[in-house]
Amino acid sequence: MVSGGVSDPFARRRTAAADAAIIGLMAEASRRARILVLYHSTSGNTKLMADLVAAGAASVPETEVRLREVAEAAADDLVWCDGVAVGSPTCMGTISWQMKRFWDETARPLWPTIEGKLGCAFSSCGGIAGGGELTCLALLAVLMNYGLLTFGIPDYVAPGRTLHYGAVCAGRPRDDADREACQRLGRRLAEWVQTLILGRPEHAPQAATYSRCT
Amino acid sequence: MVSGGVSDPFARRRTAAADAAIIGLMAEASRRARILVLYHSTSGNTKLMADLVAAGAASVPETEVRLREVAEAAADDLVWCDGVAVGSPTCMGTISWQMKRFWDETARPLWPTIEGKLGCAFSSCGGIAGGGELTCLALLAVLMNYGLLTFGIPDYVAPGRTLHYGAVCAGRPRDDADREACQRLGRRLAEWVQTLILGRPEHAPQAATYSRCT
Amino acid sequence: MVSGGVSDPFARRRTAAADAAIIGLMAEASRRARILVLYHSTSGNTKLMADLVAAGAASVPETEVRLREVAEAAADDLVWCDGVAVGSPTCMGTISWQMKRFWDETARPLWPTIEGKLGCAFSSCGGIAGGGELTCLALLAVLMNYGLLTFGIPDYVAPGRTLHYGAVCAGRPRDDADREACQRLGRRLAEWVQTLILGRPEHAPQAATYSRCT
Amino acid sequence: MVSGGVSDPFARRRTAAADAAIIGLMAEASRRARILVLYHSTSGNTKLMADLVAAGAASVPETEVRLREVAEAAADDLVWCDGVAVGSPTCMGTISWQMKRFWDETARPLWPTIEGKLGCAFSSCGGIAGGGELTCLALLAVLMNYGLLTFGIPDYVAPGRTLHYGAVCAGRPRDDADREACQRLGRRLAEWVQTLILGRPEHAPQAATYSRCT
Repeated sequence: MVSGGVSDPFARRRTAAADAAIIGLMAEASRRARILVLYHSTSGNTKLMADLVAAGAASVPETEVRLREVAEAAADDLVWCDGVAVGSPTCMGTISWQMKRFWDETARPLWPTIEGKLGCAFSSCGGIAGGGELTCLALLAVLMNYGLLTFGIPDYVAPGRTLHYGAVCAGRPRDDADREACQRLGRRLAEWVQTLILGRPEHAPQAATYSRCT
Repeated sequence: MVSGGVSDPFARRRTAAADAAIIGLMAEASRRARILVLYHSTSGNTKLMADLVAAGAASVPETEVRLREVAEAAADDLVWCDGVAVGSPTCMGTISWQMKRFWDETARPLWPTIEGKLGCAFSSCGGIAGGGELTCLALLAVLMNYGLLTFGIPDYVAPGRTLHYGAVCAGRPRDDADREACQRLGRRLAEWVQTLILGRPEHAPQAATYSRCT
Repeated sequence: MVSGGVSDPFARRRTAAADAAIIGLMAEASRRARILVLYHSTSGNTKLMADLVAAGAASVPETEVRLREVAEAAADDLVWCDGVAVGSPTCMGTISWQMKRFWDETARPLWPTIEGKLGCAFSSCGGIAGGGELTCLALLAVLMNYGLLTFGIPDYVAPGRTLHYGAVCAGRPRDDADREACQRLGRRLAEWVQTLILGRPEHAPQAATYSRCT
Repeated sequence: MVSGGVSDPFARRRTAAADAAIIGLMAEASRRARILVLYHSTSGNTKLMADLVAAGAASVPETEVRLREVAEAAADDLVWCDGVAVGSPTCMGTISWQMKRFWDETARPLWPTIEGKLGCAFSSCGGIAGGGELTCLALLAVLMNYGLLTFGIPDYVAPGRTLHYGAVCAGRPRDDADREACQRLGRRLAEWVQTLILGRPEHAPQAATYSRCT
């Protein structure tokens, strides 16, 4: 396969990107993890979730968190971060058009230069079995399209309450399990960034001292 | 959230797992990346894909590859690996029952101790638009359930040929693009393992010297 | 597009199928709707759901219901029915291998002769946000592969409780909303079969006298 | 479950809807099937697909077709139709934000009064394995949310070319198989509407005289 030259969006960024990647990754032994919590909210419910996700990420040492509403987020926020938690209301079973527009238009010039970052998802939906899981999986597919590595969470935050493909609330976060699910998502994102991007295995979830299964 | 004690599958593995994770991650500066290619094949088509995925992984320096047919694979193969590429024929729009049984039964005792490894997917289906993408996404969801980080691939291996959620062939790998898609998947898996698990950014795809977009 | 002859699974069933379809549809003015509830259950939770789905279907006048555990179900049960509700536990984020094997092997000789029937899905999973929606959607994709028409349900059975892609319970059906969700699914299946397959619009959900949104 | 009164969007439409449904369905013995082809297109590729879907629908006798670009479509187009084929480019792995906005905003006041209609999907994506299937399935989930019955197509339009979850093209429709896939989708939609909504089994796909598997 010969180089695609002008038509190759990877090629035209290669030398600079490679240098940046290598130098960057080697130089970052001492810097903080950078977590972006990017959300859209119509009723305010997904915003409440986003606040909790951000708090969970911030609970991990050496972690810096940016919380951005989608209308105010910029492509640079994605460039900045090591990992992103994306939250959207479930609208008719999938991502809201406002959040989708961000990935179709605002973020598009970055494709695929943000690859190798980590990503996860959360959603508020009208009801249990109302599409929150589908929205999370659709968000993860968008992130995979951009080359991010995505994850869900095996933990149970209460009996019968988990977040295997991202955190989901029916409406606003309502009880301890809802709140813990959102915080756990942010915390896990920061933990994986610390472990995999910044090379600090002491933050791996395998080393967690909090209960991961209630 | 108080520790779940006996009922907490994480808790009963915590001390040992944490020690192993930290010591393991710190000690592995010099070891090879370990890639598992796990597949099920009925017609032989997914096996042909698996061979190519394995070859792609093996093309990355310092990488060891295990190729396992699902009936012969053991839970230990998952424990051994840093990253896994899972291949299943598309059967009626999703994972074959034989591959599903592996994750429902063979791998189950491991849940969730294999978290933090990397995973990707491939599938042979009866035809284009026949469910290969859905099978890949279902496989990735299974891996996310186990706590793996999963990814797709932004690259184009030929005009109009990509593998954004995993490599898909209609039938057997038939032309250069099909073959390159399978190899690219294995190569990328090894590259991400080198970069993220073993801390060797010189293998990051951002530094690739091959064309990533034709 | 010239007829595919021997290689065309549709062709070799065409004349008989067409005759059967036309004669069958015209002759059935007075017969009962035939609903199959097909389930797999490991813990017994999905069986409890299946019982409720069957009861919901049976509550629609002129409806006959067959309840079949997957190990005892035969391809003929699919041939017999006008509509099917398929239930599987959520195992690692999607259909259990036992239910998948039914569609990969037992039902396979029927492909695609059962097209035009109606189908819906239900699942018991380990927890909320644990994959129940994904399992339902995967089941619907299997049914679509076979040519069935599939549906979800807009209704809310309690505040914050719906079944937009099928009925989902965390564990066993636990409260009135869980039970109503399962019954509503079976009832709706029978209603759509009455309306669309048997031409009896008096059973359409638009004419329902029960509350469809609490 | 007692009627939800004012808070029940179904209830406030019930009497009128029920009357309309029953009278409507009984009175339509002689009217034409009404098919809406609703699409969004950025590059023009999805528009080319839409034209072919519309032509396929129009090839079924007694069928009236409306072709609407999403920016010009109105909620009334959905009210008018018996069945809808929805087409969107695959943008970052799922529905374009413009098409999503239609369902989030334009169509929303109709929810759930358009239930019981039939729906299917099509998508142009950047490449094979680039997300076309995922976009189709996401569109079908949106339609299911609204209470429509959705379907895919078992037929093969050429060896290794199918449309099990909707018609997918890599770029524009390029060869006979691409064109036939689009036409087949529209034709099947009209056939199912004739069979299931209008009670004319002579149009059932089981009675098709064209080859359904090449």
